[in-house]
Amino acid sequence: MTTRNLYDTARSSASFRVRIALNLKGLPYEHVAVNLLKGEQSRDDFRALNPAQLVPLLEDNGQRLTQSLAIIEYLEETYPQPPLLPGDPVARAYVRAIALSIACEIHPLNNLRVLRYLMRTLQVGEEAKNSWYRHWVEQGLAQLEGQLVAGGRAGRFVFGDAVTMADVVLVPQIFNAQRFDCKLDQVPIVMHIFANCMQLPQFQAAQAERQPDFV
Amino acid sequence: MTTRNLYDTARSSASFRVRIALNLKGLPYEHVAVNLLKGEQSRDDFRALNPAQLVPLLEDNGQRLTQSLAIIEYLEETYPQPPLLPGDPVARAYVRAIALSIACEIHPLNNLRVLRYLMRTLQVGEEAKNSWYRHWVEQGLAQLEGQLVAGGRAGRFVFGDAVTMADVVLVPQIFNAQRFDCKLDQVPIVMHIFANCMQLPQFQAAQAERQPDFV
Repeated sequence: MTTRNLYDTARSSASFRVRIALNLKGLPYEHVAVNLLKGEQSRDDFRALNPAQLVPLLEDNGQRLTQSLAIIEYLEETYPQPPLLPGDPVARAYVRAIALSIACEIHPLNNLRVLRYLMRTLQVGEEAKNSWYRHWVEQGLAQLEGQLVAGGRAGRFVFGDAVTMADVVLVPQIFNAQRFDCKLDQVPIVMHIFANCMQLPQFQAAQAERQPDFV
Repeated sequence: MTTRNLYDTARSSASFRVRIALNLKGLPYEHVAVNLLKGEQSRDDFRALNPAQLVPLLEDNGQRLTQSLAIIEYLEETYPQPPLLPGDPVARAYVRAIALSIACEIHPLNNLRVLRYLMRTLQVGEEAKNSWYRHWVEQGLAQLEGQLVAGGRAGRFVFGDAVTMADVVLVPQIFNAQRFDCKLDQVPIVMHIFANCMQLPQFQAAQAERQPDFV
């Protein structure tokens, strides 16, 4: 029998992505909470598992896997059904590019450790910190909306009517955007896709407030 | 005959990654310079090609591809020889995780647009901006070194003695680190790999100073 442990954090977007992917693939897992606010990712026991001191970490049949997008690609290769990438290389590149537009251009700027550096080291005030947050989210999502318009592939989801890796990365970012009161009315396609995803039980069950460590 | 155009910028790390990958795959291309300092990525003609307003953009046989890691995955699927990923899913996940540790945790914090926001909007001084830069590079590379030690896979390159996507992403980050005088003596495995990569003509030819738009 497969043992599968996900070391994650309720509010971590990267953890949220992997929870969605596991749910979409129908893969059950044990949840091991890592409290980032208490710095548990830097404790010796977790560092021994992941020297990068980041969640999520997936243990799948004794194999340790890190970085949410690498984990999702691994799940796609190891448990191909249902697919989270289309079959054609150009279409796969399009879906990956949308996912990476969020994972590389928006999310890294709004991590807890980055916000802490702004406030503690650069002495940036609460309002300027929130403006920073909204700036990158709103700019990034506007560019994403432009990509979706230009790509002409959006349907119920980012790539037509099948859920892909791009939707898996999009949804947690929108939760963050809403939490920080970002303007979202200028990205109607993004929000249409978000609403459609959130009708699916695999996305619902993965959200922060449904996790045992949610506070 | 294949037409292949790379819209890129000499000093852009993401462009540098794609140049290395194209060289490793032995794929010739035409170089189209986009001057980020002059804001050419936001001009109407480039926005029409890439609404995300980012380099690199690869046109391969009329297909437009964005996001450096999505482009490299596309090249891997379309032109499989020589491979830039190992064959085993767990090994592939390891290589991708190393690449993403740089692409998602280090590089996004040190983009030109981020440094500009720090200086222009947050009024951060030159010294504090450089400290920001070095903080994320040094912390990120230290964690990467820890991953390489724990992974026990490093040889001449990140994954044994064959060049992979992880090396392709590592090398441009080290150029940036050196440019900003980051401390690198605490990451000996990283620097050993960097030195081995830079002995290869495919990496040498891709570096910023060899590009026609280098200034």
